[in-house]
Amino acid sequence: MEQTSSFPHFSISLDSAIAMLLAHTAGPQGCMPLPLLEALCRIAGKNLHARIDLPPFDNSPLDGFALRHTDSAGASKDRPVFLRVVETIYAGEVPQKALAPSECARVMTGAPLPYGATCVIPFEDTDNQPDTVGIFHPLEDHQHYRFHGEDVRQGQDILHQGERITGAHLGLLAAQGFTEVPVFARPQVGILSTGTELMSGPEALSPGKIYDSNRYLLAARVLALGAEPLCSPKIPDDPALIAQAVVELLKTCHCVITTGGVSVGAHDYMPQVGSSIGAQPLFRQVQMKPGGWVTALYKDAKIILCLSGNPGAAAMGFDLLAGPLIRRLAGAAEVLAPKLLGILQDPFSKASPQNRFLYARREGREVFLPKTGFGSSLLSSLIGCNCIVHIPAGSPPLDPGDRVELIPLSA
Amino acid sequence: MEQTSSFPHFSISLDSAIAMLLAHTAGPQGCMPLPLLEALCRIAGKNLHARIDLPPFDNSPLDGFALRHTDSAGASKDRPVFLRVVETIYAGEVPQKALAPSECARVMTGAPLPYGATCVIPFEDTDNQPDTVGIFHPLEDHQHYRFHGEDVRQGQDILHQGERITGAHLGLLAAQGFTEVPVFARPQVGILSTGTELMSGPEALSPGKIYDSNRYLLAARVLALGAEPLCSPKIPDDPALIAQAVVELLKTCHCVITTGGVSVGAHDYMPQVGSSIGAQPLFRQVQMKPGGWVTALYKDAKIILCLSGNPGAAAMGFDLLAGPLIRRLAGAAEVLAPKLLGILQDPFSKASPQNRFLYARREGREVFLPKTGFGSSLLSSLIGCNCIVHIPAGSPPLDPGDRVELIPLSA
Repeated sequence: MEQTSSFPHFSISLDSAIAMLLAHTAGPQGCMPLPLLEALCRIAGKNLHARIDLPPFDNSPLDGFALRHTDSAGASKDRPVFLRVVETIYAGEVPQKALAPSECARVMTGAPLPYGATCVIPFEDTDNQPDTVGIFHPLEDHQHYRFHGEDVRQGQDILHQGERITGAHLGLLAAQGFTEVPVFARPQVGILSTGTELMSGPEALSPGKIYDSNRYLLAARVLALGAEPLCSPKIPDDPALIAQAVVELLKTCHCVITTGGVSVGAHDYMPQVGSSIGAQPLFRQVQMKPGGWVTALYKDAKIILCLSGNPGAAAMGFDLLAGPLIRRLAGAAEVLAPKLLGILQDPFSKASPQNRFLYARREGREVFLPKTGFGSSLLSSLIGCNCIVHIPAGSPPLDPGDRVELIPLSA
Repeated sequence: MEQTSSFPHFSISLDSAIAMLLAHTAGPQGCMPLPLLEALCRIAGKNLHARIDLPPFDNSPLDGFALRHTDSAGASKDRPVFLRVVETIYAGEVPQKALAPSECARVMTGAPLPYGATCVIPFEDTDNQPDTVGIFHPLEDHQHYRFHGEDVRQGQDILHQGERITGAHLGLLAAQGFTEVPVFARPQVGILSTGTELMSGPEALSPGKIYDSNRYLLAARVLALGAEPLCSPKIPDDPALIAQAVVELLKTCHCVITTGGVSVGAHDYMPQVGSSIGAQPLFRQVQMKPGGWVTALYKDAKIILCLSGNPGAAAMGFDLLAGPLIRRLAGAAEVLAPKLLGILQDPFSKASPQNRFLYARREGREVFLPKTGFGSSLLSSLIGCNCIVHIPAGSPPLDPGDRVELIPLSA
């Protein structure tokens, strides 16, 4: 019944498991241009470089008068300097005249500065007269002066392949005249819940059965990673039916995630399913808790990652193992979750002989553990969690104030 | 040209401005049921209560034998207790027999526990024989025993109106047999960029012109708030055309955000536009930098929020003022952005006579200022920022290590 002997690495470290999954995972499947707004939250498919300087020309940062700063030398309340206003330049216009000495131009915020101007004085610092304007203090070279290219230089990198595209990227791309942006194709991720105990709403629950929640828990995570979930109907504990469903998902999906059937129970069929479909076994157990029973299979150059059926363990297995895999498929430059330090606010009263992971909520640096406990089936304790606390194997019980390593969650 | 006199509050505090906007903003426009996965990231439209206990029945947390713990009293390696295996119960099945004294049942993870069982012993702690099984240590009452309702009690709140729906919510709702979830309608937010200087790609840039970036910067933010942006074509500095575009947007949108034309320049028409369309002026300047020039208008029970044309100032005005307004329209329970403490890692060398806000990047509690500077037009410095640092009016220059107040950004 068990296929343990065919698994070359019975129980491996989390880092080794991730490395093995990534070593068997190719990058994204192609790249396509999308209109800017549709590209939000997608992964950039190419590096993009600035087409133009930003700002494209020297311009005024405020409403005022453009002048040569040398003309203002020695100006004071008692001995103002008077300059002739030769034109008014609005944003979007082009200066018609170069400034000769003792001349100035009325300029609005964003207006190009005329040839010869070396600074701008705000309206409110002048007497703001229509034809000849009085200046009451000296200005410095390039005071209130916005240079072309001070934001972005032509040719500069403005988007890096593998970056997640944010609103700030879209603003910058639009300011460069881009209307489309190349993004990587979204990987399709097959999701399959196995277990004779599973039912789906709105059917009334029969005795001994539970409603399948893993499908939604995992599909939401797939979406948060920028991939597309493809959910198969749930399958009872029947190895032939499970094998058929996995093979079907492999036809269109770039990887398949299953839940259930990975432990040592009599109906834990996933290792057997792996050998029946000719998949290469990668590992069967990972040194982590919860979710340590994980069967990883490899077939048709695709990973089949079989997680525990317990929702909390399935979610943890997904976040720690499927996350890097799907980020690699999606073309993300950073496939490993970042790690942060946090300060525990609640006690964790158990010693951790194994590598232990807890869902938790962080606010700034403070980390709060769910009040409802840590059982691997506790769906309610996941609500509001936004990070995973990692407690290394061999740690004693933890107290409030202890520093812990955190993995932030994206959804 | 200026309509200053008709504005009852010329320059008001940020808190007053937010309060005034919220006082003029109704809640969400209706509620509809959506299939679970489509409801991800939407705002819950109703409270939902648990229909059933979770788990629905007492069950086994592992693969092992269910027994009466009293039968195991005194068991040891030398003097094992032997129990008769009366049945095997898989997950999804129903126990057929009650346990009599000295009986046990083989149970798989998630299987319902038979009547009479008070604990479970893992396979690996027994001799795991088929008919009569040896137990080598005593068990406690309810050891390895998962109670019905220990995760969720029937009737318990599982989703609160106004909450943003996460993957964890979907998992919990699915586990309760829900297939749909009521969500609030997404508000439509009109977006209008004004300015004669504006062009759009892919047209080649003419002298004195810039490409409009605000439309995308703001539309992406509207999407991140769970609302729908409706972008009007950009409009030159012509009050009649601007008025027409605003009125058009008001027909379908629940609020309108414009950029440009709010300062004291000769073409800063937004206050005038407000009076030409019969809008009630709310305020014209807010005590904040950047983005302090903000014209807020009220017409047809809708807010028209007119932000600066400078992208950095427009984004800041949006995040601080439009954010709460749109969250209210979307039905979010928490309309004000949360505030956190951070530790500045970079110096900020200017004193802040005004209430100052800086885009920054936080990692845990550490806060990094953009290397590229703080000019209100600096689009490139927005990339990678994930929070706003608030420096209260009257603050001296800041040093690394100083504590600062942070507002996290959602996108």
